[in-house]
Amino acid sequence: MIYAAVIGFGTVGSGVVDIIEQNQEQIRRAVPEGIYVKYILDIRDFPDSPYADRVVHDIETVVNDPEISIICETMGGKEPARTFSQMALEKGISVCTSNKELVAAFGPSLIRTAREHNCSYFFEASVGGGIPLIRPLLDCLAQEDVTSITGILNGTTNYILTKMDRDGEEYAPMLREAQKLGYAERNPDADVEGHDAGRKIAILSSLMCGKNVPYESIYVEGISGITAEDFLYAGAMGCSIRLLGVCRKTPDGLSVLTAPFLVKEGHPLYAVSDVFNGVVIHGNMVDDVMFYGRGAGKLPTGSAVVGDMITAAREKEAGHFTPVLWSEEAEPMQSFEKHACPFLVRISAGLKEKAKTAFSGHIEKILELKEHPQEFAVLTDIMTEKEFREAAESLEIHGRIRVLTQE
Amino acid sequence: MIYAAVIGFGTVGSGVVDIIEQNQEQIRRAVPEGIYVKYILDIRDFPDSPYADRVVHDIETVVNDPEISIICETMGGKEPARTFSQMALEKGISVCTSNKELVAAFGPSLIRTAREHNCSYFFEASVGGGIPLIRPLLDCLAQEDVTSITGILNGTTNYILTKMDRDGEEYAPMLREAQKLGYAERNPDADVEGHDAGRKIAILSSLMCGKNVPYESIYVEGISGITAEDFLYAGAMGCSIRLLGVCRKTPDGLSVLTAPFLVKEGHPLYAVSDVFNGVVIHGNMVDDVMFYGRGAGKLPTGSAVVGDMITAAREKEAGHFTPVLWSEEAEPMQSFEKHACPFLVRISAGLKEKAKTAFSGHIEKILELKEHPQEFAVLTDIMTEKEFREAAESLEIHGRIRVLTQE
Repeated sequence: MIYAAVIGFGTVGSGVVDIIEQNQEQIRRAVPEGIYVKYILDIRDFPDSPYADRVVHDIETVVNDPEISIICETMGGKEPARTFSQMALEKGISVCTSNKELVAAFGPSLIRTAREHNCSYFFEASVGGGIPLIRPLLDCLAQEDVTSITGILNGTTNYILTKMDRDGEEYAPMLREAQKLGYAERNPDADVEGHDAGRKIAILSSLMCGKNVPYESIYVEGISGITAEDFLYAGAMGCSIRLLGVCRKTPDGLSVLTAPFLVKEGHPLYAVSDVFNGVVIHGNMVDDVMFYGRGAGKLPTGSAVVGDMITAAREKEAGHFTPVLWSEEAEPMQSFEKHACPFLVRISAGLKEKAKTAFSGHIEKILELKEHPQEFAVLTDIMTEKEFREAAESLEIHGRIRVLTQE
Repeated sequence: MIYAAVIGFGTVGSGVVDIIEQNQEQIRRAVPEGIYVKYILDIRDFPDSPYADRVVHDIETVVNDPEISIICETMGGKEPARTFSQMALEKGISVCTSNKELVAAFGPSLIRTAREHNCSYFFEASVGGGIPLIRPLLDCLAQEDVTSITGILNGTTNYILTKMDRDGEEYAPMLREAQKLGYAERNPDADVEGHDAGRKIAILSSLMCGKNVPYESIYVEGISGITAEDFLYAGAMGCSIRLLGVCRKTPDGLSVLTAPFLVKEGHPLYAVSDVFNGVVIHGNMVDDVMFYGRGAGKLPTGSAVVGDMITAAREKEAGHFTPVLWSEEAEPMQSFEKHACPFLVRISAGLKEKAKTAFSGHIEKILELKEHPQEFAVLTDIMTEKEFREAAESLEIHGRIRVLTQE
């Protein structure tokens, strides 16, 4: 029997325990001895839980039990998750986590610690919830020169944007609805301001290049500035609006950002609606592949953690640990000023001539909506952030959204 | 250096060699020694190829060279591919293949031979071309009780159906167009009659249950009977028509078939158009996950073969071979008569009363199109194949298509 401990008995942690209990038969096909959760570490007690007798409060109990070979870290946050993970790895206990904040901040050093102590540090659940994504990228696509990753990585914001698109609603009431349904937190900033998606694209970018892309080096813009008018123009262009994490190889270094983008109908991400996530990986040989599914939730996210536990158990049994290529060395990044894409920019009707001058040579199309005679929009050709900012600064713009281009 | 041989230097085989040459830097991140193609086995010579000096004609040269540790079998067809694969595996040489015909027919015995001789038999490229699919199913979703797999598994037919849908065209001219573009063979039967998709769903079904689902036990229906009228009704229902491979767990055993289905807008497979493939896997914990990408082509399919070669090289280095769970034991199958789904059936206008009696208690909706007053269609509720056949046999039906229901 493989003995495991779950540290952090919240939504995902309790999902992990439920899955291990309910799907033991499936798990035993892959790990014939079976996996048993011996401890649940949490600061709380759970007297009504069927697992009440496994609850402990002291990390020492867990990491000093020589029977424990795998820990699921489902606490979230940097501390004490980092200290506990480090303690476990230093004892040769593999750690599987859903904690994107920790992975984005300290992934490379935790991976190094695991390698030094012959165990595994896995984090499939930290990006895309239940969607198999990190392992396919690292294993199945190891032969590819991956040149871009583009993903809808946050279900909360995708739900809000999808509803705004379908119902023509404004942002604020749709956020309230998402909160009512439990899709958004009471303090929704981590989701709606793009931080969650930003952490996830930082993780994917690092895995794409094998070096470190710190979250802090990424431009992050959320969806709280998106309006019902933006969707009218999007619709007129045959597009929807999605919050994307985008990572691209450029001759100047890696370009990584999180921001709302116009996505054209027909693009595989256009069809990713509601709380679903989808990630398109572009390789030089395989072209585009997309992975789609539930990016959050107790059981989907728990499933990804349990999948990692199975691989960790197999690696331990084989005594062979496939290295996760993510070094502490910083990946050279393109300056955000040089990021280039088309923009859709909304401008007061009175400034049309001025706008034509400001964007001269860059105007792809001018859009006017009958419903909104007080303004118009310019779709530009591909401009850098710097060029766009300089062109727009003399105008009082009502809003601007980047446009996703296909490779 | 890992020395490999490519047997069968056709489209996929030459893709494999090109990828290994061009992406050697990426391959070395995963396999630091690198992979080198030492032999290319084919009955032909390729005097103009840059690899002409590696071409050999005798399998003995390849399998008796103790340096060779991996073979890519990209010959297609059952023989001599099976004999050559068997010879290699018995010498402990791992085999990676794109040959769905061979895998569907002899997968379990080749997997057993590999296990007996401490090497790998991998076939990621046999289903879904370049899409990572088999490894995610076996590894990342090992903890799941997978209850269904539904896939667009053939790019040729998907191209034809997508064009018929968009342009309102008939089947025959769209087949000719696909042939002109090189998407369909001159003898298109393997694709359009569903055999190719049938082999692929047989492979996925076997991997889903771990036992054997012979291709011969599957009901297979192609797309040559689909008409422009069918698409008119589909459109009226907010659906398109897709050739699907469907595998479902039922209380009576596994239900597996390949046939055209109506797929509703909003279903993730609805957005899979043109030559692309997409596969939805439903697990009891993770819910639906979809994998999408290019299901055919020299480089995408070659990429999947090279991905398998990397895993085979890693397993060889570790001296540990993760078993592929696909035994020779036959999986109990549900009788096709009991397969159940809604049907859309087109009937002559004059038979309306008779049809109402025949389908009495099963009528969900009656559809009438202004353009086609000479007929109407009945959308039934969920009926078994037997029930449907008995209800329809007294009527001269113009056509019937199954309707995909979501779990």
